Amino acid sequence: VAPTDRTLGAMEAKGLQLPALRPPAGSYVPYVETAGPLLYLSGQGADGRHGRLGEDMSIEEGQAAARECMLNLLAQARDALGSLDRVKRVVKIAGFIACTESFNDTPEVLNGASELLEEALGDRGRHARSAIGVQVLPRGFAVEVEAVFEIQPSADSSG
Amino acid sequence: VAPTDRTLGAMEAKGLQLPALRPPAGSYVPYVETAGPLLYLSGQGADGRHGRLGEDMSIEEGQAAARECMLNLLAQARDALGSLDRVKRVVKIAGFIACTESFNDTPEVLNGASELLEEALGDRGRHARSAIGVQVLPRGFAVEVEAVFEIQPSADSSG
Amino acid sequence: VAPTDRTLGAMEAKGLQLPALRPPAGSYVPYVETAGPLLYLSGQGADGRHGRLGEDMSIEEGQAAARECMLNLLAQARDALGSLDRVKRVVKIAGFIACTESFNDTPEVLNGASELLEEALGDRGRHARSAIGVQVLPRGFAVEVEAVFEIQPSADSSG
Repeated sequence: VAPTDRTLGAMEAKGLQLPALRPPAGSYVPYVETAGPLLYLSGQGADGRHGRLGEDMSIEEGQAAARECMLNLLAQARDALGSLDRVKRVVKIAGFIACTESFNDTPEVLNGASELLEEALGDRGRHARSAIGVQVLPRGFAVEVEAVFEIQPSADSSG
Repeated sequence: VAPTDRTLGAMEAKGLQLPALRPPAGSYVPYVETAGPLLYLSGQGADGRHGRLGEDMSIEEGQAAARECMLNLLAQARDALGSLDRVKRVVKIAGFIACTESFNDTPEVLNGASELLEEALGDRGRHARSAIGVQVLPRGFAVEVEAVFEIQPSADSSG
Repeated sequence: VAPTDRTLGAMEAKGLQLPALRPPAGSYVPYVETAGPLLYLSGQGADGRHGRLGEDMSIEEGQAAARECMLNLLAQARDALGSLDRVKRVVKIAGFIACTESFNDTPEVLNGASELLEEALGDRGRHARSAIGVQVLPRGFAVEVEAVFEIQPSADSSG
């Protein structure tokens, strides 16, 4: 039985049509539902991976930087949780990529982080994300990634 | 009875004064409280809406792009939830706008997304937000919007 | 007794090693765990603090702007909660800094916001964060900061 959707009915009565679903532009999913608890991870760069995509860094080098950012995030998550077994699901990552105005391949770069998550965590690594090309990152990093994980509850909740 | 506020008292004893409340710069609210559960939605662009505000795209075209991003997000939310009736509240959106360094009207552009939310969801569509002007977005999109929704609980929590 | 970590074992079997923990680049912590409820605060600028770091604004002026953004966020939080005593923990802030391509000191600028939090809230003010250098912010602000706070539950959950 299909669920009712009065909201959609009211939208359509106003002339608002939902578009077709767009496929993800990379190795991620369009949405993740979570009831928490959550682990918020500060943005991580990758040491020695400095530069700007579209200028002095190739897509492959950017992917390697994104992958290392994600390994740094997993290292912090393990420090926070004691064990990566407590990661229930990666909820969301945001990837910031230092690049020129004409660089259009931020999704490919961020796939370096997304694919590492699936490699390391399997289905638990499937996540929502946004990829954003920015002016500059701390210390001149090429890529910075932040993340929110859903975790198994614990008694201690301080970071 | 006004609640006590020892924190504010301690701040004032250190010389820290709270400033007057600033009004929102657009069609949004300054804060939203949520106890979850949450639906995290990956950033959505709007197909065919490429360009850079302040350069080759007008504010009206940017607003149309932002509106389409939000319709794409609602389409994904419906796919996730089965029915938009399960959207309890839009908690937060972040809008990224590709623009020149001198473009100051990112709030007006993002209003295209914010006003669509109120049109579609009424009071449930009132949300917190940030508007950020960036170098470049995936595929050269003019606008990308991501969102967090508070939802009615369900048995299935995977995206 | 150390917890088991089958996830890490499986990663190592694939040749994936966790790197050493990187120290935070500023006055923040690498992660915060939260079970909610949460208060999402819209991005706040600082009135009169316009400019671009690396061009027409010093690091000290940027820090002052970041500090005022955070005071604006605390003012909104008090309006939302009735009392800042209801702030259980600052979970995460994101700081966006308008700057030139060659400006590498976004962490120092954002410390203006982070240090204000610790000054105002003590241990409750310790937070995860990301610092992002961007093209332009609403109204030409030099800095914009958004935040997520963990709060004490209340009966009323609308913003």
